[in-house]
Amino acid sequence: MDETHKITGGVCAPKGFKASGTHCGLCSDKNKKDIALIVSEKTAVCAAVYTRNKVRAAPLELTRENLKNGSARAIICNSRNANACVPDGYEKALSVCRLTANALGVSETDIVVASTGVIGKSLDIKPFQENIGKLVGALSENGGSDAADAIMTTDTIRKESAVSFFLDGVEVKIGAAAKGSGMIHPDMATMLAFITTDADISDIMLSKALKRAVRVTFNMISVDRDTSTNDMAVLMANRLAENTPINKEGRAFDQFADALTRVCVQLARMIAADGEGATKLLECRVSGAASEEDARKLARSVVSSNLVKTAMFGADANWGRILCALGYSGAEFDPLKTDISFTSNAGAIDVCKNGVEIDVDEKKAKGILLEKEVQIAVNARQGRFSAVAFGCDLTYDYVRINGDYRT
Amino acid sequence: MDETHKITGGVCAPKGFKASGTHCGLCSDKNKKDIALIVSEKTAVCAAVYTRNKVRAAPLELTRENLKNGSARAIICNSRNANACVPDGYEKALSVCRLTANALGVSETDIVVASTGVIGKSLDIKPFQENIGKLVGALSENGGSDAADAIMTTDTIRKESAVSFFLDGVEVKIGAAAKGSGMIHPDMATMLAFITTDADISDIMLSKALKRAVRVTFNMISVDRDTSTNDMAVLMANRLAENTPINKEGRAFDQFADALTRVCVQLARMIAADGEGATKLLECRVSGAASEEDARKLARSVVSSNLVKTAMFGADANWGRILCALGYSGAEFDPLKTDISFTSNAGAIDVCKNGVEIDVDEKKAKGILLEKEVQIAVNARQGRFSAVAFGCDLTYDYVRINGDYRT
Repeated sequence: MDETHKITGGVCAPKGFKASGTHCGLCSDKNKKDIALIVSEKTAVCAAVYTRNKVRAAPLELTRENLKNGSARAIICNSRNANACVPDGYEKALSVCRLTANALGVSETDIVVASTGVIGKSLDIKPFQENIGKLVGALSENGGSDAADAIMTTDTIRKESAVSFFLDGVEVKIGAAAKGSGMIHPDMATMLAFITTDADISDIMLSKALKRAVRVTFNMISVDRDTSTNDMAVLMANRLAENTPINKEGRAFDQFADALTRVCVQLARMIAADGEGATKLLECRVSGAASEEDARKLARSVVSSNLVKTAMFGADANWGRILCALGYSGAEFDPLKTDISFTSNAGAIDVCKNGVEIDVDEKKAKGILLEKEVQIAVNARQGRFSAVAFGCDLTYDYVRINGDYRT
Repeated sequence: MDETHKITGGVCAPKGFKASGTHCGLCSDKNKKDIALIVSEKTAVCAAVYTRNKVRAAPLELTRENLKNGSARAIICNSRNANACVPDGYEKALSVCRLTANALGVSETDIVVASTGVIGKSLDIKPFQENIGKLVGALSENGGSDAADAIMTTDTIRKESAVSFFLDGVEVKIGAAAKGSGMIHPDMATMLAFITTDADISDIMLSKALKRAVRVTFNMISVDRDTSTNDMAVLMANRLAENTPINKEGRAFDQFADALTRVCVQLARMIAADGEGATKLLECRVSGAASEEDARKLARSVVSSNLVKTAMFGADANWGRILCALGYSGAEFDPLKTDISFTSNAGAIDVCKNGVEIDVDEKKAKGILLEKEVQIAVNARQGRFSAVAFGCDLTYDYVRINGDYRT
């Protein structure tokens, strides 16, 4: 990953992508952009992963059908309404798809439709009808941030990322916009992520790269153990970089997959840090697990524990709760072999060795845990596998936000 | 269960049990009783279930060994310190066991030792040494409530229950004390419950009855999806009721198991309603599931969802979150066949039919959800199995309590 470096521009960073995002009337606040449009000037190879929740929103069903041919031209996504669990969901999603296809002059099956927001309320099509022209007219190579803004719900910060890297001397770019702050838990493609690239890569390899990246990033986030009906990650590759096509595993594929993972890690960290009500990002780094699956289970169990999350909110080095969460993870695990330490910009401290307390300097520990990003390192000493999970603390504001989301 | 009726007395309600509970100095607040002692005048048959967390506190290990012979005379339990994840845990538990056995003049292997409180701090034995005489001296047939008080941690209400019923004309009683409010999740024997009975029943049938009752009660509670290192339920039967011994399945066994379940349901409801920071009890009643295991998964998924729990705190009829939680439960489930309704003392309201919204009177729904006990009824229409899970809402106080539990 040496040659990969961060760039600006979000979804518009790669060649041939334009985007827009504007207030269309779904949200009563006129300053809130509520529909995003992302368009490739050329038909792109397209891969996607979807929520594993059995309740799947209508736009996802439609998008799955549209992507059966493996290609797409545009993504349209609204916030404010999930278009999920409503009798006319599919019909409405199809209307949005048709409106967009007509306005862009492309095939209906080349449209990715996504929605996020409240479940169980019928989607109002009028804001789409009245504003699709405006959205198309506003498409711009500088529109990445507008699109990223338009898909935000309870998010408090815009989530964009982009990188540039070289494949045999040819510059290739990957850009992305994401949203997600509540209803986030690892068993899924845990939020909305729209990723663009100008790489030339086959549909099979694109899908493989996306799955590889999602597995260690979005699927390792937990904000509240709830898994949404609407989550998906979509990756469009329009081939305009003109690199030697990536058709098989090998160095070029690894470079691409690593760069993609880097983009997704950035977004995953942003999503976790911006978890509803969160004051800090938690990263649990498990090493020494007996298998990769065990490492994943252990790391996710720690960042998912309400008791660990509240302790971190209180900057309380209550490592007993971490050991407890490891204990019920379902993974191979021996408390008496386990070491735990905390790390942040304020330093590092070992708190537990072989499952028992080290004489901890509580003041030093507090200083470390008061930082905005805290790493919880666990060495399980069962084997050689490791994993990282992303989460956040559980706060008064999480309760406030979710106690009256609809009112 | 017609002839089973509630009585007072808690663990001392059955013949031949005495109890005490007093402040011994583990807690700095002199008004807080912190050690409980429960004694049977005759050696009792004893069954127990333990936490399934791989991190298991020392007292549980010792109690398992002591109960290998299937009998016990006394239970000693302290609050304030879990005696878990400390190098000298087993040694300390053994000291407590010996002190108690000596003071009562019984065998060490007839002592059940339990602890609850903070993990990772060495247990101070001095309060036991200095007060075991006082605890034994205070043993009384009226001491059930003192014992129940002494095992409380963040509990806000004492948890006792007792019933009386007749087996072929002979009166038999079951009494119990329990504690548990945080770190409670169903995959376990989810808290401390000490249950006494004067029934004459074999060890095998006693164990069978306990497992049957725990499965549908304590293991169906979720307060925060965290499962403790210290949880256990212990059932002592001292045979003093002189009923015809229960040695096999049949009517008498069913009567006993039903009465025991009734006691455990009462305690489970009290534990859930007194969940840390909770303002209300949630009961999710799932019917029409494809299997019993599916019914359990569906019900537990609903009461475990942070998003459902915060919505209930806000008295918000956000049934989409319930459907969402059903969707990721892992059970067979078709959202388009699912009905959801809310019931409380203020009335009943259907909110979702076949997975889509019924035109809900939000004001009426709010009135129903503002009550202290709310039932969420789910008909999955997949089969004929049902289950009930117990939970509570997620509130600001949960965060407050757990954000600075140790400080």
